[in-house]
Amino acid sequence: MADFELMKLLNQKNKKKIVLLVMDGLGGIPMEPKGHTALEHSKTPNMDKLAAEGALGQIVTVRPGITPGSGPAHLSLFGYDPVQFEVGRGVLESTGIGMKINAGDVTARGNFCTVDEDGLIIDRRAGRISTEEAKPICEKLNTITIPGVSVEVRHVKEYRFAVVIRGDGLEAEIEDTDPQKTGIETLPAVARDPGSQKAADLYNEWLKKAREVLKHEPKANACTLRGFSTDPGLPQFKDAYGLTAACVAVYPMYKGVSSLVGMDIRTFAGDKPADEFAETARIWDQYDFFFIHIKKTDSAGEDGNFETKVHVIESVDEALPDLMTLKPDVLAITGDHSTPCKMKSHSWHPVPFLLWAPETIRPDDQSQFGETWCTRGNLGTFPGTDILPILLGHAGKLKKFGA
Amino acid sequence: MADFELMKLLNQKNKKKIVLLVMDGLGGIPMEPKGHTALEHSKTPNMDKLAAEGALGQIVTVRPGITPGSGPAHLSLFGYDPVQFEVGRGVLESTGIGMKINAGDVTARGNFCTVDEDGLIIDRRAGRISTEEAKPICEKLNTITIPGVSVEVRHVKEYRFAVVIRGDGLEAEIEDTDPQKTGIETLPAVARDPGSQKAADLYNEWLKKAREVLKHEPKANACTLRGFSTDPGLPQFKDAYGLTAACVAVYPMYKGVSSLVGMDIRTFAGDKPADEFAETARIWDQYDFFFIHIKKTDSAGEDGNFETKVHVIESVDEALPDLMTLKPDVLAITGDHSTPCKMKSHSWHPVPFLLWAPETIRPDDQSQFGETWCTRGNLGTFPGTDILPILLGHAGKLKKFGA
Repeated sequence: MADFELMKLLNQKNKKKIVLLVMDGLGGIPMEPKGHTALEHSKTPNMDKLAAEGALGQIVTVRPGITPGSGPAHLSLFGYDPVQFEVGRGVLESTGIGMKINAGDVTARGNFCTVDEDGLIIDRRAGRISTEEAKPICEKLNTITIPGVSVEVRHVKEYRFAVVIRGDGLEAEIEDTDPQKTGIETLPAVARDPGSQKAADLYNEWLKKAREVLKHEPKANACTLRGFSTDPGLPQFKDAYGLTAACVAVYPMYKGVSSLVGMDIRTFAGDKPADEFAETARIWDQYDFFFIHIKKTDSAGEDGNFETKVHVIESVDEALPDLMTLKPDVLAITGDHSTPCKMKSHSWHPVPFLLWAPETIRPDDQSQFGETWCTRGNLGTFPGTDILPILLGHAGKLKKFGA
Repeated sequence: MADFELMKLLNQKNKKKIVLLVMDGLGGIPMEPKGHTALEHSKTPNMDKLAAEGALGQIVTVRPGITPGSGPAHLSLFGYDPVQFEVGRGVLESTGIGMKINAGDVTARGNFCTVDEDGLIIDRRAGRISTEEAKPICEKLNTITIPGVSVEVRHVKEYRFAVVIRGDGLEAEIEDTDPQKTGIETLPAVARDPGSQKAADLYNEWLKKAREVLKHEPKANACTLRGFSTDPGLPQFKDAYGLTAACVAVYPMYKGVSSLVGMDIRTFAGDKPADEFAETARIWDQYDFFFIHIKKTDSAGEDGNFETKVHVIESVDEALPDLMTLKPDVLAITGDHSTPCKMKSHSWHPVPFLLWAPETIRPDDQSQFGETWCTRGNLGTFPGTDILPILLGHAGKLKKFGA
């Protein structure tokens, strides 16, 4: 893991700009023996040029053999050992849509569901009601008050929402209220330890009031809560690395994890790579560090759609000159984990990594960006948590250690 | 090291079969400049085919530069950091011959020796008396009783035996009683800490009674004890990895270490690779994980016999199709350490590693199994303790970490 004490001791300011460009689920395996991965198959003249000028390697974001979820994988990319720093799904969701979660607050992800007249669940996702239907229901839920604390409900997407209870020293070791099956009642919030009893009681009070609010809804006549969590207290980018950092991402989860490490979350129009690079250009003078997240490589991998994954990678490559005209001093291009189309899921395979830093690079003899070439690159295979220190080093943002 | 908490959290059952085929002391160095290692020199068409379809790398089982003993090296192959998990030689010997050592028991390796009329050692191995001579003497020793505890003596081989004292909370920090030279008396059992005093006293009482039993023996008229140790309390394969595991090995030490991690120890006829693969076939339906151990690569290395080492490797390769007809889902072929014929001893050199997993492999461009090609494989050089998580990953036996 990045040694935060060492980073704090050594960090120094300068005007150099660092870009971390993450294509989610970038790594893959061939669809058939002797085949290529999607990245290898993609026509990426711009990335290949950077590969030729830069250096390649592979990263492992959690541990060898372990398939990373997206939250833990991004923590690793940002320098935090995801086994040490556990971040609840609720807090990722809530912060991802811009809710503030402070120490002592507890948040949870909510799902609307449908129950019959006996209160037994008949649809765990309330018929997957649309965002248009769900938003006004969330507004009604947001009118619920509980004495002594503040409660906030915000809609996320379709049948999903988030609830934050802001109190004093609340703890979040609480079981999900979603029984994960139909034909039975929703569960109460049960504390797993005495410290979390107060928050569980508050959530049960909220759930009781929510039942009243929802009882006449045709589909969303009940709800369940999952992923109770609180502020994980992650070291902040500014303190840990001395960096002002911006997150340029489209999907809430990635905004959530970026917000937890203290990045500014940007809001912008469009969801194409070109739109993300355009937003980066707009804010170029304001930050030292830019995290740019491309989601659709992962979605294509999950769908097992090789052609689409190739197309997404090629669309990033095509837009890349827009980013390069900004003249970053240090650029890393990588993924958070592999999502091989053949497996239609995240996997444990190491992730291709490209480092470009014209002033300071020790180049290798590779000239294409892809899994096979990355295994021959001079950076070797290394933990994702080493990325930040390496980028800071190349940006001249770390003083010499010792005389 | 394999993170056992993480493994427990993530492990999931399926029907996939994993084989870990270990050729003891597999790694080597060339006998002369520009020469090949024994593995490189061997004709191994079957392993080369697997190398072409799979991926290569190298493992370090203890630490860089450290020459592993067989016990620690195997602990590493099984995912246990051998620097953290110390396993006494006595407990390896005793469990290797099938004796049960529980927490609170203490065991030791025994050597018969010859002393003169003044009690001074004149032969530390009692003229290397044969198994036939030694067995009945061990039976006499096994009649010794000590009030309050149970004592068991079992013959191992030639002048060697094992003694277990089973008590209540006995501890094993006790000095060897073998002074390692002749011309002086055997030493008493001396406790290195207060907690081990009770066991030392018991062993001294046993040694006193043993002297009586042995005093009229022509050669084996005394004995020494070494490697006092107790149950190391290793996490068990079933708990740590969710695996039912079998050990198919010929030599006691390897059975011992396998037994300590909770593998079932198989007994079968024959000692050739083909016999071991035949036993694997017989029990194929009963287990998830098969550890198959080939000893003679190491013996040939220790003897400095390059031709024999080549011959043993080729005999494994020749029998390999028997193993492959079982259609393992994930297969690793490696060694526990290097034993270069040129050095006639174990060494610290990294060990060649071959991974074959047709459904999930990211293949590299190597097509032969050997030290040189393994350094070019896409698995890189990694700790032996990462092997189990990687095999579990490829076998789909680990859930995703985080969402």
